[in-house]
Amino acid sequence: MSSNLIPPPDVLKEPIKIPPRQLFGPGPSNMPDAVAHTQSMSLLGHLHPEFLKVMHDVRDGLKYLFQTTNDFTMCASGTGHSGMECAFLNLLERGESLLCVTTGLWGRRAESLGQRLGLQTFVVEAPQGEVVSVEEISKAIEQHKPTAMFVCIGESSTGIVQPIQGLSEACKKHNTLLIADTVSRSSNKSDIFPKKKQSYFFQVASIGAEPFKMDEWGVDCVYSATQKVLNAPPGLAPISFSKRAMDKIRNRKTKVASFYFDALELGNYWGCDGQITRYHHTAPISSVYAIRSALSIIANESLEHSWERHKTNVKLLHSLLEENGFECFVQKPENRLACLTVVKVPQGVDGKKVTASLLGKGLEIANGLGESAAKLWRIGTFGGNSDEQKIRNVVKMLKDEVQNPTNKL
Amino acid sequence: MSSNLIPPPDVLKEPIKIPPRQLFGPGPSNMPDAVAHTQSMSLLGHLHPEFLKVMHDVRDGLKYLFQTTNDFTMCASGTGHSGMECAFLNLLERGESLLCVTTGLWGRRAESLGQRLGLQTFVVEAPQGEVVSVEEISKAIEQHKPTAMFVCIGESSTGIVQPIQGLSEACKKHNTLLIADTVSRSSNKSDIFPKKKQSYFFQVASIGAEPFKMDEWGVDCVYSATQKVLNAPPGLAPISFSKRAMDKIRNRKTKVASFYFDALELGNYWGCDGQITRYHHTAPISSVYAIRSALSIIANESLEHSWERHKTNVKLLHSLLEENGFECFVQKPENRLACLTVVKVPQGVDGKKVTASLLGKGLEIANGLGESAAKLWRIGTFGGNSDEQKIRNVVKMLKDEVQNPTNKL
Repeated sequence: MSSNLIPPPDVLKEPIKIPPRQLFGPGPSNMPDAVAHTQSMSLLGHLHPEFLKVMHDVRDGLKYLFQTTNDFTMCASGTGHSGMECAFLNLLERGESLLCVTTGLWGRRAESLGQRLGLQTFVVEAPQGEVVSVEEISKAIEQHKPTAMFVCIGESSTGIVQPIQGLSEACKKHNTLLIADTVSRSSNKSDIFPKKKQSYFFQVASIGAEPFKMDEWGVDCVYSATQKVLNAPPGLAPISFSKRAMDKIRNRKTKVASFYFDALELGNYWGCDGQITRYHHTAPISSVYAIRSALSIIANESLEHSWERHKTNVKLLHSLLEENGFECFVQKPENRLACLTVVKVPQGVDGKKVTASLLGKGLEIANGLGESAAKLWRIGTFGGNSDEQKIRNVVKMLKDEVQNPTNKL
Repeated sequence: MSSNLIPPPDVLKEPIKIPPRQLFGPGPSNMPDAVAHTQSMSLLGHLHPEFLKVMHDVRDGLKYLFQTTNDFTMCASGTGHSGMECAFLNLLERGESLLCVTTGLWGRRAESLGQRLGLQTFVVEAPQGEVVSVEEISKAIEQHKPTAMFVCIGESSTGIVQPIQGLSEACKKHNTLLIADTVSRSSNKSDIFPKKKQSYFFQVASIGAEPFKMDEWGVDCVYSATQKVLNAPPGLAPISFSKRAMDKIRNRKTKVASFYFDALELGNYWGCDGQITRYHHTAPISSVYAIRSALSIIANESLEHSWERHKTNVKLLHSLLEENGFECFVQKPENRLACLTVVKVPQGVDGKKVTASLLGKGLEIANGLGESAAKLWRIGTFGGNSDEQKIRNVVKMLKDEVQNPTNKL
């Protein structure tokens, strides 16, 4: 046989090296042993009855997690961001218009995606670290009369909580769908989710850490990721569509501009439509095992207990930070998230040197995202990492770094 | 705390149950221990230096696998089908036209995806089990003058090998890009890949089992899956774009209708453009470990040895099948695939009962796909499953089932 081949890279002749690491950034978080254990289990075919059963278990577990009875509750076969694409692709058609209320990175990403998908987009942008007032938003709705409005409630790049109280009336008046993205939801929720006819649309990576009740709050589309509170590896985007959302999807004038993310096809594979399963695509088998196992942990603990635990432990984190001279970025404790705490880098400290040094010692906390990269740290306390001893250790290690003269500016 | 919650499904209180299974269908195939071992390793952050290094190792390993020096060699973060979407989304713009030459399921899927993406599509379809003649295709090019032509060379639903010899001249004449999909490539390749200016476009799930030389053959886009010859879990779609393909992408009039699959953004994350890594999305961390480990196995064995092994073992499979009274669907041995063998269900035998019975005994072989579901079996011998003892066992078990009176029609 001819051997004039491009040779393999030498590095592949060495085994893979993965250092152990405590993951207290914005995700991925650490896998518990029970989840890790499933990942080396034998693969199954993507249509084997035993695998379809695992999918159905996941589907039913997600209904519990999202607190919904929606038939179309499933996973898109991609990581968290694919959930945003799946939601937009299915719920909106080309030529429809989208108003994006943006307080940071996620709002801009939604705007950019909207443009790529052929939507007409408008923007109301807040100055960094501030919110957009309801009056400004109402004025923009009045002016643009968009088909839908996208609001990022919990902005993980800044920790800003954008209130949406009072917006439903303005939306209703112009027949605008209200689409809300909450990467990490705020804690003052009952007042911002009044029962109404507008279509909600959520990204809830904090799901499992704070109360979220899709049906009770009248949410029409929610999507999430597996690598945050669920403590599973990234690879799936759990997503649920309400009956109203499915009506909108079934009455589209055009087909969804993707086969992979088509909610009707995907829903058939996940057993959501009561019809015989057709071959759609090959699901990421091991990732489905992982989320099955993660949902089992939450079901055994109970959502109520998980919410309480995250709340108690994040309050401990806030106290310890303050006792040690740190300041939380979000001033009002009631607006702080239960699983992601944004901390100001103290004056005179090189925030990025600190995170790099901690990483070398086996602990991840994250820098800010985008414009706030050097000014903020982000500490995630997701799932099993919402734990008193682990949190005490994180604060101790952070304090040691700040006091180290090599990390001064 | 209020407890008026929707309760968790009882089934989640039980642990996950996965039976061991020998996977001799069209994929997923079995993970070797070295791959399975990586799946329970500690997760890393999606931008941690150690994880970026793993991505770079994978990128370089894929260059070896595809036999290319293309900078833009990487993975889309979805399973195999997402590779098709990633390729179409990046290489074609709305309003451009696509001629699909279809001999089975994959051609129709390409047509359907083209329509979803706003392409004008035309079809030349072969009667089942036959190919489309070069004359017919040339006539269709003459008639429609499409921007691109999609040809599925190896149709995994029927085992049909569609020849494309002589098409490049017809394409050239009308400035048509030639896009070829080969789920499982044929073995008579040097004559069907002449050096030319047209754009090739491949899906090669059989990569690693038979010679494939992207650069030497002038292929412009190839994509694949991880769960076939690579023996890794499904979850990534390796993909490579030639310089010509990247020129086409960089000169698009419109942005790619996806952020998740945008080759320029994805390529930056995979370190393909030499620029500083921007945050794009969270890669499926464990799946990247798995393909790193799978590529390491291939690099250590060498492509040449892997090609030889698959060839030798599939010939053994053909002989054993014939000795035992079975008939291969593809008549000419030189047109049969090295990793997927299509077998006719003998007269009087219930093909689906046989596969169901084997599944219950821990062995998967697959039914046909689509129209040929009941008439054919498909036996995959991918990677570590291309093994003499395992193949002897598969044929023995298949023969026992066929002889069992309960499996007669």
